[in-house]
Amino acid sequence: MRLVVKIGGSVLSEGLEGLIGDLKGMKGVVLVHGGGREVTEVAKRMGKEQKYIVSPSGIRSRYTDLETLEIFVMVMAGKINKWIVSSLNSAGIDAVGLCGVDGRLMVAKRKKRLIAVEGGRRRFIDGGYTGKIVEVNPELIGSLLEMGYTPVVAPIAYGTEGEMLNVDGDRAAAYVAAGIKADCVVFLTDVDGVILDGGLVRRLRLSELDGVMARVGFGMKNKVLASKEALSMGVKKAVISSGLVDRPLNRALEGRGTVIEVG
Amino acid sequence: MRLVVKIGGSVLSEGLEGLIGDLKGMKGVVLVHGGGREVTEVAKRMGKEQKYIVSPSGIRSRYTDLETLEIFVMVMAGKINKWIVSSLNSAGIDAVGLCGVDGRLMVAKRKKRLIAVEGGRRRFIDGGYTGKIVEVNPELIGSLLEMGYTPVVAPIAYGTEGEMLNVDGDRAAAYVAAGIKADCVVFLTDVDGVILDGGLVRRLRLSELDGVMARVGFGMKNKVLASKEALSMGVKKAVISSGLVDRPLNRALEGRGTVIEVG
Repeated sequence: MRLVVKIGGSVLSEGLEGLIGDLKGMKGVVLVHGGGREVTEVAKRMGKEQKYIVSPSGIRSRYTDLETLEIFVMVMAGKINKWIVSSLNSAGIDAVGLCGVDGRLMVAKRKKRLIAVEGGRRRFIDGGYTGKIVEVNPELIGSLLEMGYTPVVAPIAYGTEGEMLNVDGDRAAAYVAAGIKADCVVFLTDVDGVILDGGLVRRLRLSELDGVMARVGFGMKNKVLASKEALSMGVKKAVISSGLVDRPLNRALEGRGTVIEVG
Repeated sequence: MRLVVKIGGSVLSEGLEGLIGDLKGMKGVVLVHGGGREVTEVAKRMGKEQKYIVSPSGIRSRYTDLETLEIFVMVMAGKINKWIVSSLNSAGIDAVGLCGVDGRLMVAKRKKRLIAVEGGRRRFIDGGYTGKIVEVNPELIGSLLEMGYTPVVAPIAYGTEGEMLNVDGDRAAAYVAAGIKADCVVFLTDVDGVILDGGLVRRLRLSELDGVMARVGFGMKNKVLASKEALSMGVKKAVISSGLVDRPLNRALEGRGTVIEVG
């Protein structure tokens, strides 16, 4: 079985140990991580204020100018990625850290401009160094999986013009999952799954996702969109589940959280 | 042919283009990089003053406390490593960036204490997060080379106690060269080779290195020591040569610079 697991920032800081317990003895797993909070902290220490923008579809994201990109790459591919890899290695899991630039694993097209919504008004701004993934080259990850390694992937893509680009971690996980023909993509986050009207939604169909997206908050919107993309590209199942519980990955695979399937 | 090429900071900032020209079409090359100046710059911007110590044998090195280590890892494995990888990829060279933590490529033992020489006096200080490489696991790099990738390695090792450690780039190159049974290790630097009494030394034997080491400056001492280690571990040849000229790698392989062989 091939599996892609996205781990967000809060899972990194509070739930990595639990996940590592699950990963022992499992093969065929690729981790994709976030870590935006850490990027913000380092940027602040370097005197570089971070800006955020909200898209018309309600997705909030970091505005990545060149200086922010450099900090993003340092923190994501350096600090966070290598910290995860060394934590896995310490637990006896042979891990290799990568980002989309390595082996041109994730190729993205730079967004030339973005639409930012501010106070109800839309305006066009320069796209900065943010990209939309257009291609995944699965050879490198595939070979690493065959050798028994657990690849750990930072959300940085190789731009079609040779630049590095900030890409969203959830959507990177979706594309990698599709690229390696994973059976399932799991989003481990700090809530139990998709919550609608105060209750956890246990099962969703691909066809229901657009409707759901309009009714959830910033962070969840992205995971629902990424699930939609993964399923549209051939991944059979997506699970959005808590990473802050015991055995988070096993629980997700047992169907706890929100399970999304084609249909 | 298998070849390990160490590229120092000045080569990174001024000579990468020339090296990339040489690398096109070459297979079997592993790059190991430095980048201390960049680490110092980022540390400064983060308000973290860097300290240096000089060992009794005259080697000057960064004192790496935990906070410095975190910056070191960010800059080396994140910023510099991924910048080199993306530059290579842009030139059509399939590169993959790694550090010693990935696949436990370089395992080091933390130096428990260091002897620092200050004003002629020696004192013991805590070793911080600096390590001496004790093991190289060549499987990962070997497989990447077989797949046609150019591995790019940051000078960070996986500590025997699970920590990450700052290791010297020159010596990392020596150990990696020995680990993958390279035919040659090339140190591309900002001078033409070993300079003694104002003149370039064209040929050196392993047995002459101890004598040479006492007569060269800080930066060169390290390269001579690394050459000695590489040759002692079975690498047939070491070349110390300029990285700031046209065709730097081809020139080094043609024997320009200082060529060191067993004997």
